Amino acid sequence: MGWLKDETGLDRNAANFVPLTPLSHLLRAARIMPERTAIVYGDRRYTYGELDARCSRLASALTGAGVSSGDVVATMLPNILAQAEAHWGVPATGAILNTINVRLDVGTIAYILDHGEAKVVLVDSQFLDVVEKALTKMDGPPPTLIEVADPAAGFPASGRHTEYEDFIAGGDPAFPWVMPEDEWESLALNYTSGTTGRPKGVVYSHRGAYLHTMGVAIAWGLTKDTRYLTIVPLFHCNNWCHTWTLPAVGGTIICCRDITAKAIYDAIADEGVTHFGGAPIVLGLLINAKPDDRREFDHIVEVYTAGAPPPAATLAGIEPLGFHVTQVYGLTETYGHITETFWKDAWNYLPDAERYAIKSRQGVGHADMAEVTVLDAESMEQAPWDGETVGEIMARGNVVMKGYLKNPDETAKAFKGGYFHSGDIAFQHPDGYIKITDRAKDVIISGGENVSSVEVEDVLMHHPAVMLCAVVAKPDEKWGEVPCAFVELREGANVTEDELIAHTRKELAGFKTPKRVIFTELPKTSTGKIQKFELRKMVAEL
Amino acid sequence: MGWLKDETGLDRNAANFVPLTPLSHLLRAARIMPERTAIVYGDRRYTYGELDARCSRLASALTGAGVSSGDVVATMLPNILAQAEAHWGVPATGAILNTINVRLDVGTIAYILDHGEAKVVLVDSQFLDVVEKALTKMDGPPPTLIEVADPAAGFPASGRHTEYEDFIAGGDPAFPWVMPEDEWESLALNYTSGTTGRPKGVVYSHRGAYLHTMGVAIAWGLTKDTRYLTIVPLFHCNNWCHTWTLPAVGGTIICCRDITAKAIYDAIADEGVTHFGGAPIVLGLLINAKPDDRREFDHIVEVYTAGAPPPAATLAGIEPLGFHVTQVYGLTETYGHITETFWKDAWNYLPDAERYAIKSRQGVGHADMAEVTVLDAESMEQAPWDGETVGEIMARGNVVMKGYLKNPDETAKAFKGGYFHSGDIAFQHPDGYIKITDRAKDVIISGGENVSSVEVEDVLMHHPAVMLCAVVAKPDEKWGEVPCAFVELREGANVTEDELIAHTRKELAGFKTPKRVIFTELPKTSTGKIQKFELRKMVAEL
Repeated sequence: MGWLKDETGLDRNAANFVPLTPLSHLLRAARIMPERTAIVYGDRRYTYGELDARCSRLASALTGAGVSSGDVVATMLPNILAQAEAHWGVPATGAILNTINVRLDVGTIAYILDHGEAKVVLVDSQFLDVVEKALTKMDGPPPTLIEVADPAAGFPASGRHTEYEDFIAGGDPAFPWVMPEDEWESLALNYTSGTTGRPKGVVYSHRGAYLHTMGVAIAWGLTKDTRYLTIVPLFHCNNWCHTWTLPAVGGTIICCRDITAKAIYDAIADEGVTHFGGAPIVLGLLINAKPDDRREFDHIVEVYTAGAPPPAATLAGIEPLGFHVTQVYGLTETYGHITETFWKDAWNYLPDAERYAIKSRQGVGHADMAEVTVLDAESMEQAPWDGETVGEIMARGNVVMKGYLKNPDETAKAFKGGYFHSGDIAFQHPDGYIKITDRAKDVIISGGENVSSVEVEDVLMHHPAVMLCAVVAKPDEKWGEVPCAFVELREGANVTEDELIAHTRKELAGFKTPKRVIFTELPKTSTGKIQKFELRKMVAEL
Repeated sequence: MGWLKDETGLDRNAANFVPLTPLSHLLRAARIMPERTAIVYGDRRYTYGELDARCSRLASALTGAGVSSGDVVATMLPNILAQAEAHWGVPATGAILNTINVRLDVGTIAYILDHGEAKVVLVDSQFLDVVEKALTKMDGPPPTLIEVADPAAGFPASGRHTEYEDFIAGGDPAFPWVMPEDEWESLALNYTSGTTGRPKGVVYSHRGAYLHTMGVAIAWGLTKDTRYLTIVPLFHCNNWCHTWTLPAVGGTIICCRDITAKAIYDAIADEGVTHFGGAPIVLGLLINAKPDDRREFDHIVEVYTAGAPPPAATLAGIEPLGFHVTQVYGLTETYGHITETFWKDAWNYLPDAERYAIKSRQGVGHADMAEVTVLDAESMEQAPWDGETVGEIMARGNVVMKGYLKNPDETAKAFKGGYFHSGDIAFQHPDGYIKITDRAKDVIISGGENVSSVEVEDVLMHHPAVMLCAVVAKPDEKWGEVPCAFVELREGANVTEDELIAHTRKELAGFKTPKRVIFTELPKTSTGKIQKFELRKMVAEL
């Protein structure tokens, strides 16, 4: 411990200790580069000076509406201007931002509003009906709704609530922000998309989010010339904290309401987008875009992809189009990504197949994390770096949630032994790079043998007819469980169940081959993740 | 304040809160990129795995020599390998690193060793005599000396002390590092070169240094391809914390023992140096290098310059050679730089003279600082951004020292009113960019009027015969003080005192023109700063 023998007068004070918060980035940007373009949504574009003024108006209006320190303000918004503004304007009142997934059902929304005790909800006109219904299902007092109309996108104001622009017009553009007095104060509340039971409310601190913004800027090489497209929803780990990051470097945020190939190509060509994050399925959109939706551009677009490893076929298809893909890995509990496939120079000279195999690894921890590794979940001992011994991905560092709101039991369980338990099963290559084999709950146990659903999916994805697939356990009298595959075929492709099973048999042990193949469109979350719990329901009905 | 109504179970724990320390960067680099080149010194080059092992050996050997948590370990070393290694190896024992300026005299070194209570000193063979003498002048118990020989540089071991390589050879390469339990623990102790009275011991925390490494990497755009040359001495604000930064991005540190034009050009051409920091005088060295010392290179080298604004003539000379210069500003008390001349795109289109004038501004605070601004030192009110009203540069943020060791009075004075007082006099342009007019103690008061020595120096520097100059106050019976100029001429140039005074008279009010011009070589610090206190002594003898 580095305490000098005499530390008299060396304490923290107002000059040498300021609580870390991502709010500081926008305040600084507004002060030092007010004329720089901060954010673009369609025809609207605001400088850092203007964005700061709008966020201040929002904070002021919320305060006027009775919001104060420690309150929760929720949003039900796509990636539009108001959603980005809420990321500064809400915490600038001392309140906690609770972004709600716009695809949720009435019952779950009502649960979240009750559990989080939101005082105000900013709602896009598109989702007004569902939120209004949710209010009627609540047990507690319903929050005030502020409607965010988006006429340009076909969603004019209903007239039933105060509209966002009217609301903030009454606010003070010079409203003094409430800054944290302790960097451990809460900044955001994000409910997991919990596949079983009620969603859990993940709480972020100002400190964690600030440190992640610095880590993201370094890992991704963000600069003032970065033009960042919001594809990852801002209700998903607050857009992996990227939106909070851009003002730190002076870059520009481009808002994207609907994630289509055309919207992405247009943003790249018209707004010069240089960076975006998204699930591999977004890359698929771009590869399979109709000719009319494509645009020419002459720069390289940096892509962080997460949620699933990018399949080799996807990498082979996307690289020649001008996209440079890096896989990152994380969870709602870790503010978005905490690992990256940090690239070694020697790998540039490998054949494509080997490069793609490396890119399918989740990689190593960012500089903002103390440790991301694979431990035996029982003994908490480090798994050997042998490329095969599996354990659970565990992490410790400042980019880990405070815990689950009003759920000390689940919080304690998640932090057992001094590490955050990810629930993801993985091994580490001899160089320490992490490779996920499965979610703990997705492992299939067939005749006492563990089957990695990811391994089976990888083999299926190499079949030319397969566009997307997912493998889950099917209860079996003899084996306990057997693998069952769900497959989306490429347009115009044709293959039979037997042919696909034969294809997997060439690569896999018999107990790992799927015993059934179902051809269907796969259910997905708003971030493009396949919903295996829906597939398990379908299996139960087979 | 963002505390949720119910924060049960949301406390800091081992999984979600890890004390910030720059030590973490090297540990991570050794884990995830052990094969990458970390550091180069002459013919010696070590990977991150090897550097980690050497630093661990050093920590282990120091521990074996009786060093423990809270002790101070000093160094008297140029920018060689051992000096960089001490930046990790010393704090890895829980001790505090005290790098001493190698140009100091015996008396001052004795004072620092007594005041800091160093237990061990690592000494380069070149400076062994002076340190041995200092030990005899100490009041307290003398530290153990470990001699760092550098035979390749002409400084073989004396044989009188344990040599560094032998010392660390006995250490354990797997020694477990002592990491801070509280990020406010002390990391480093840097004595100011105090021009009056005894030097003050500036104490850095692990937190401040970590946050500055993240801020530096972002501000300067450092990546794994960065190859950084150590020109700023590691005993000067720990090399502005740059050496601690490089492992965060996976770049390479190139050590430079003697700062000559040839050494710098060779490092650029042979080692591909992409970044370095240094005083404007270093740029002068490169511009005025002999043809034989120059080397060809085809990339742009990023330079952070500080200590004095880069003169227009220097910028005009250095840019065509392939160097891109950004001024930064800071003090020992601020871990190196806390501002940068953050560049606005519109400025790219300005005529050179205007661009250079902007580059002479100290600029705006980094993203790692909460506030760097100009306040009235009496009222602590913000000076208007009018390009003329002067005040004192004040700063608050996490990249500000803990305080001065065993000097609570000076610490309290430095932090009066909740800001760190820089002692630098400046105004802010209408865009908020800070421009220093003088050090508080360098202002000349002539007939009741303030004369900025910097302003007079700027005018002198525009005379083609002037290579370097400095203006100080000369006591005067009539006016109180008058400006007195000290000038170094360019090789072969010729000009008289009267001609130079006439030159300044064309640009400046009469009371601002120097009344005397003395042609002489200017006394400089090891970092290239002109020592005005030496000039004041010369003035007294005129």
